[in-house]
Amino acid sequence: MLEVLSRIRVVLVGTTHPGNIGSAARAMKTMGLSDLVLVDPKQFPAADATALAAGADDLLARARVVPSLEEAIDDCVWVTGTSARQRGHSVPPLAPEPAARGLLDHARQGTVALVFGRESSGLTNEELDHCNALVQIPTNPGFSSLNLAAAVQVMAYTCRATALSLVDKPIPAYDPDPPATQAELDAMFDHLQRALVAIEFLDPEKPRHLMRRLRHLYLRVGLTRSEVAILRGILTHAERGGGRPRA
Amino acid sequence: MLEVLSRIRVVLVGTTHPGNIGSAARAMKTMGLSDLVLVDPKQFPAADATALAAGADDLLARARVVPSLEEAIDDCVWVTGTSARQRGHSVPPLAPEPAARGLLDHARQGTVALVFGRESSGLTNEELDHCNALVQIPTNPGFSSLNLAAAVQVMAYTCRATALSLVDKPIPAYDPDPPATQAELDAMFDHLQRALVAIEFLDPEKPRHLMRRLRHLYLRVGLTRSEVAILRGILTHAERGGGRPRA
Repeated sequence: MLEVLSRIRVVLVGTTHPGNIGSAARAMKTMGLSDLVLVDPKQFPAADATALAAGADDLLARARVVPSLEEAIDDCVWVTGTSARQRGHSVPPLAPEPAARGLLDHARQGTVALVFGRESSGLTNEELDHCNALVQIPTNPGFSSLNLAAAVQVMAYTCRATALSLVDKPIPAYDPDPPATQAELDAMFDHLQRALVAIEFLDPEKPRHLMRRLRHLYLRVGLTRSEVAILRGILTHAERGGGRPRA
Repeated sequence: MLEVLSRIRVVLVGTTHPGNIGSAARAMKTMGLSDLVLVDPKQFPAADATALAAGADDLLARARVVPSLEEAIDDCVWVTGTSARQRGHSVPPLAPEPAARGLLDHARQGTVALVFGRESSGLTNEELDHCNALVQIPTNPGFSSLNLAAAVQVMAYTCRATALSLVDKPIPAYDPDPPATQAELDAMFDHLQRALVAIEFLDPEKPRHLMRRLRHLYLRVGLTRSEVAILRGILTHAERGGGRPRA
């Protein structure tokens, strides 16, 4: 049952200090996580990363380096972003334990991602917009300076502890309707935007705010592949106005 | 209620690397713990400790250094020792959460201690014999090399998270975007059905199955009132095909 932990990918975005990458790899491995993806790290590979990984250098050797968050998560069925502050995102952040439960739940269907932002500034709003859920580690309001590797440690531990608490639960039956991947969702959002412009609901000059609201709404659901197919069917009909000739 | 965290003393026994003392202080402070006692540290004070404490150097400045575990805990009403392995101790180790609950429970009566052993060899049997309870952080059996500061971080986090879960839930602030009522959702589903017929996606003779799928999808979200307003705006535009005259 704990093999499910190998389906939790840790994504570190824009890490400045390579030592933090090494410490994060060590933190992951102590808790049985093994899939590490680095988005545009400032320096990697690096001696500091290897030194601080201690015996977790195998995770570093297998770590993928990609230029953007999209590439890091495009095969994922659920993405949880870490957020120190709440910043105009309409999805309220979860505490670590319910966030871990969500990740483990979706990990039965495929790869899930836990995304950590830059040491100084976290994740951008645009990056947060790719997340199905947010998690916020509760800290001392007077000193919330949680080191990146410490945050990875807390979340990796919480995932392991939560997985252990679920071990006795029976394995659910095969789900004939698997969750949509991030790539399928992105294609759906593109389609949605085209359709909203076609029905003149959306001003193509300033789609930003409304599209974000709709993204947040649909990401919250955890859409299945067949639901995405239904919604795209609706969009296709809406675009051509019911198949009847348009004026 | 969270002031109870200030009654949890962290005791580090025989720490070899002063950097670990600094990182442990930082980990403590992020979670609202502040009472640090060092038993026979190899080197303290030390520049490495101060550097890694980041903004938690006030904890280091107030840290007491004592020669034995007994002196570190003699005023404590409850002592929990961390143990990587079980070694002939008759108290079976607890998982972090029940251990934190025990500490918090006793902290209502006085100071309690959470004791961490040496980086290499942990606590001796004699030291463990001073503990009321033991805690073991679950780790990957293939790689259990949890750094001392990482162990402090996991336990300090678990104490904070457990304390938060015990605080009476505060009354949530007024939500500027309240959840939609069932009546509002039903009106939206009626509107959705009319729109899907208008764009010829839905056969008005047999709408049943598809409408149920869509209901389940949207009910799962927990839509807010303003999200319902956006979705109904889209439906209105879709119905009239973008406001243009229909054939």
